Amino acid sequence: MFEEGSILRQRYGEENVFDLSIGNPVMEPPVEFSQGLKRLVENPLPGMHRYMENAGYPETRAAVAAQLSLETGIKFSVNDIVMACGAAGALNVVLKTILNPGDEVIVFAPYFMEYENYIDNHGGVAKVLPTDERFIPKLDALEAAITAKTKAVIINSPNNPSGAVYAEDVIHRLGELLRKKESQYRIGIFLISDEAYRKIIYDGLRYPPVFRHHPQSIVITSHSKDLALPGERIGYIAVHPNCSRREELVDGFIFCNRALGYVNAPALMQHVVRSLQHVTVSVAEYQKKRDFLYGHLVEMGYSVVKPQGAFYMFPKSPLEEDVAFVKELQQWNVLTVPGRGFGSPGYFRVSYCVDDRTLEGSLAGFKKVAQKFNLC
Amino acid sequence: MFEEGSILRQRYGEENVFDLSIGNPVMEPPVEFSQGLKRLVENPLPGMHRYMENAGYPETRAAVAAQLSLETGIKFSVNDIVMACGAAGALNVVLKTILNPGDEVIVFAPYFMEYENYIDNHGGVAKVLPTDERFIPKLDALEAAITAKTKAVIINSPNNPSGAVYAEDVIHRLGELLRKKESQYRIGIFLISDEAYRKIIYDGLRYPPVFRHHPQSIVITSHSKDLALPGERIGYIAVHPNCSRREELVDGFIFCNRALGYVNAPALMQHVVRSLQHVTVSVAEYQKKRDFLYGHLVEMGYSVVKPQGAFYMFPKSPLEEDVAFVKELQQWNVLTVPGRGFGSPGYFRVSYCVDDRTLEGSLAGFKKVAQKFNLC
Repeated sequence: MFEEGSILRQRYGEENVFDLSIGNPVMEPPVEFSQGLKRLVENPLPGMHRYMENAGYPETRAAVAAQLSLETGIKFSVNDIVMACGAAGALNVVLKTILNPGDEVIVFAPYFMEYENYIDNHGGVAKVLPTDERFIPKLDALEAAITAKTKAVIINSPNNPSGAVYAEDVIHRLGELLRKKESQYRIGIFLISDEAYRKIIYDGLRYPPVFRHHPQSIVITSHSKDLALPGERIGYIAVHPNCSRREELVDGFIFCNRALGYVNAPALMQHVVRSLQHVTVSVAEYQKKRDFLYGHLVEMGYSVVKPQGAFYMFPKSPLEEDVAFVKELQQWNVLTVPGRGFGSPGYFRVSYCVDDRTLEGSLAGFKKVAQKFNLC
Repeated sequence: MFEEGSILRQRYGEENVFDLSIGNPVMEPPVEFSQGLKRLVENPLPGMHRYMENAGYPETRAAVAAQLSLETGIKFSVNDIVMACGAAGALNVVLKTILNPGDEVIVFAPYFMEYENYIDNHGGVAKVLPTDERFIPKLDALEAAITAKTKAVIINSPNNPSGAVYAEDVIHRLGELLRKKESQYRIGIFLISDEAYRKIIYDGLRYPPVFRHHPQSIVITSHSKDLALPGERIGYIAVHPNCSRREELVDGFIFCNRALGYVNAPALMQHVVRSLQHVTVSVAEYQKKRDFLYGHLVEMGYSVVKPQGAFYMFPKSPLEEDVAFVKELQQWNVLTVPGRGFGSPGYFRVSYCVDDRTLEGSLAGFKKVAQKFNLC
């Protein structure tokens, strides 16, 4: 997608291409980040670019633990945290640690398209389940799908690509269901919560911590979105302090961080994010962009579930063939992603973490295509 | 090892532990690095922490290509280079790209202990071959070991753990042998050259570029050692411009960089190393450390092949049981690594990328143990 956009920009000029295809935040990192980085670079710590423990600096892990304790009301310690190369690195480390060949991992469509690669990397089998019309997991489908080979369920809320935020009640019932199935099959089932967008949530909603609803839970996340640092590959794994065999699990994470060749999360970023655990980019700005785009799309006749978090929306494709529809938009230099890339054909993803000029400029294309297909 | 050292330091005090067990350079990065980082942080580029192409910034790849062209006399372009999360990330990306399950990868003992994990990560089978008494690959053993399932040969010169540097003639004959076997079995065999220590080479020796001796060659490396940035995870993959199916191969690297969860080499470091391709830490300082330690160990009666590069030496263990010997040294708070960790029992690795105080302090322990085993 990156490359496609580049080609179009070269052909038509930067200002005539409206690239809503990638989750690459246009916002700069918060000023606290720039200040922290500058302070560190001007007063370098001795050895601050050297190797550290594969788990990451204890001071950074302690800062993450303190913030999670605050957010969840559960007491986390440095030993519950492993710093990772982004959420992608974190998820690969977790899957490598827990999966045996043939183990099943359940995901809910629409889902972040790389999950299937990650599960496959470590010999697992992805089992894709549907969500309801608001993109919330269907628990009856989950109940029917869990087998003795189920090792983990991955959830992602706020969701990429739908922007859906799961209510506390959904997570609570999900946890109950997992424990019921665990005792039915005498297995352990991990709830892996991908929280890359945890801090980007709208309408005054609060994120319900999964940790409160299932002890066998593992959170993976990154600072790619909350601090707008996607290129820096800094994130972490947090495991529930009461998870069974927690110590063994964390030892596995540390080993796999090394054995998979990540080695450690980038050192300089570990130093900087240490003091930024409570800092987030301007969510209000993203909410404004959401409101702008959502309002216009709905007015044009697109069918969209209003996203409550992240910076994507996932409208229904006016054509059954979402790939064909995305090509229609592309004719107007508006770049989006077909829903089938997320396991949900018949939709398309619009990323609105772009500048206002791009958002505004895209409207003409959306309008033309809406008219072509008689949406209103 | 990191953790063991920490425990001993807590028990006996920092100044009484002589940790020669890890390759974590004590030197700070060159002043050009600190200046470049400072300049960038004080004058940030717009979007400099965002995602870029999975292959890395074209400008950084172009700088790497230019430097390699200079060093090898072969013309590299931006399309021959993929930026990676250190040499470890680079090697995993290469192996994921080229290996089918059951494919054989040949390594020469002693070798960097993580190779086996990396090969195993991607379904390959490591085949370990011996080296001669100076740690140089035995080509007759290689000739006998290559089968129709051989997909790659990994070499690592300057070598971790032995410090051996392969002469141009060895690499030349290695290339000839690979081509002979390629045509015998009608297969392609990649020569993967791990050059993490390429710039750290002593006695006025020059590194002979593998690229000149085999077109099916891939170099993986990092700036962990030449710029003393091991914690920052910045390195690259370079493929011979005339490698067959080069384009397909590089597309595979880019895909695997993403699919393995590395996504891209850390952005900020890509910006900084762009202008530092010709810069290296003080090799003279490492050579001084080598001369100091080598001189003393030989005088005490240890049997050591004088290393010509990297910052390790690999003496014979006075006890047949290298693990037992390493424990003897540990009794004097001198930390080293048993040779069996590198596929070569009967030796032990000493890392001398440490401060002079640690090197000097370790001598008493080496001496005591040498006396105990009547080395002189």
